[in-house]
Amino acid sequence: MDYTRKVFYYETDQMGIVHHSNFIRWFEEARIGYLSSIGYSYNEIEQLGLISPVLSVNCEYISMVRFGDTVNVNIKLTSFKYVKFTFDYVVTDVKTKDVRAKGSTSHCFLNKQGRPANLKKDYPQIYDIMMQAASDKE
Amino acid sequence: MDYTRKVFYYETDQMGIVHHSNFIRWFEEARIGYLSSIGYSYNEIEQLGLISPVLSVNCEYISMVRFGDTVNVNIKLTSFKYVKFTFDYVVTDVKTKDVRAKGSTSHCFLNKQGRPANLKKDYPQIYDIMMQAASDKE
Amino acid sequence: MDYTRKVFYYETDQMGIVHHSNFIRWFEEARIGYLSSIGYSYNEIEQLGLISPVLSVNCEYISMVRFGDTVNVNIKLTSFKYVKFTFDYVVTDVKTKDVRAKGSTSHCFLNKQGRPANLKKDYPQIYDIMMQAASDKE
Amino acid sequence: MDYTRKVFYYETDQMGIVHHSNFIRWFEEARIGYLSSIGYSYNEIEQLGLISPVLSVNCEYISMVRFGDTVNVNIKLTSFKYVKFTFDYVVTDVKTKDVRAKGSTSHCFLNKQGRPANLKKDYPQIYDIMMQAASDKE
Repeated sequence: MDYTRKVFYYETDQMGIVHHSNFIRWFEEARIGYLSSIGYSYNEIEQLGLISPVLSVNCEYISMVRFGDTVNVNIKLTSFKYVKFTFDYVVTDVKTKDVRAKGSTSHCFLNKQGRPANLKKDYPQIYDIMMQAASDKE
Repeated sequence: MDYTRKVFYYETDQMGIVHHSNFIRWFEEARIGYLSSIGYSYNEIEQLGLISPVLSVNCEYISMVRFGDTVNVNIKLTSFKYVKFTFDYVVTDVKTKDVRAKGSTSHCFLNKQGRPANLKKDYPQIYDIMMQAASDKE
Repeated sequence: MDYTRKVFYYETDQMGIVHHSNFIRWFEEARIGYLSSIGYSYNEIEQLGLISPVLSVNCEYISMVRFGDTVNVNIKLTSFKYVKFTFDYVVTDVKTKDVRAKGSTSHCFLNKQGRPANLKKDYPQIYDIMMQAASDKE
Repeated sequence: MDYTRKVFYYETDQMGIVHHSNFIRWFEEARIGYLSSIGYSYNEIEQLGLISPVLSVNCEYISMVRFGDTVNVNIKLTSFKYVKFTFDYVVTDVKTKDVRAKGSTSHCFLNKQGRPANLKKDYPQIYDIMMQAASDKE
């Protein structure tokens, strides 16, 4: 899926480029849009008492993004197993199509007690949505 | 009370100065330090089911702050009445003593139901701490 | 002019609402969109050697904004005189039309030397754009 | 080297924990402190016309950090070769000593033209500082 947005002025730093930490936030924006598109509302999930913390992030910065640019974040759900799922991201410039960054994040589902949630048993609807999305990628 | 801290690189923008929104965050840092110093732990308050949202902020930017600078935020509790309280802030450069900004914020106490909390009746300990602090200012 | 956007997850805080500092950033997003719409490109201005720092901000928070909400920022250029200009902002919820916040910001134009720029003489094109926009408001 | 600091309220999100993107910013805070401690002033470097963009970041989140916590970021320069250098980070809770996160970043030096800088030839002083620091780690 593609998520497109303009760079905000406050995302730049004195190097005159977007501060690298903001890419991690763009990943989240794209991810929440993606989850919403497959029928997984982040707010509903949290209301069910589930949280899905980030287990890891990584990002390789390939070329600089500046204020005035519009970027596209292409996001793919690359795996979903039990309570863990991972995404890949490619950030490109909308105009030039140049790749700006590549990254990935991994996540899990925890219940209110902070323990890994048995999605298949306790939250079959979310399990099905995620399984479907993970198989759609191929 | 005085709260001192260095400017972080990621707080700058492409103008080469600290982005103005960060002063609002510095006010909060100073405020939480102040409240902690008078015996008011923000976490304990929230555990009691009280929240204290911000009702208003204002900030006048007098001179620019840059990466490499260390700033001092002088904070004063200027009033406390029933459920509402206000602070004044003066941001100065630690080295030059130049005033960088002046601001103020106002806040209230709400209970779990989102209604103004009767501090004097239901949270006398917090009420006493705030009354004491407000009278200390003179 | 209206600027609409979704709330980002990372804009929330542990109170479960959007952190108040982010409204100041939304004002900037709306402002840059507005300036762009009247033919004033922020990047071109900076390339001319002009900067327009923020002189003051204020914001009154009326009701809480949460993740899942979409907000509209209505922005008006309320005055433009010599080197100084001011904006008013009203943030509303797109669905309920409830007012979430009201604010204003003031700005000036400085040249490379950090001195107030004589727009009318040295940058007549920007001067005309701003004068036109300021008169359009009525 | 160790860099210690309190968690700021605005760094939390509605999950009630520090938003994961902030760890990337803490890495930068620690890194700039480290570079300063070995005699490398970030501002001076930029005034020489050198920039050192981030090439990659990664972070593994091991346990949650909450408002009220104080964290320590242990930073190590793990390599320096020609124009590229890398750091490792371990974030621990100051009180419990629990590991909160582990990460790394890589960086390079670019000159004003955006090309890799020949540090040894053109900036021998910085080259020597970095070489010394990289050898000190053993």
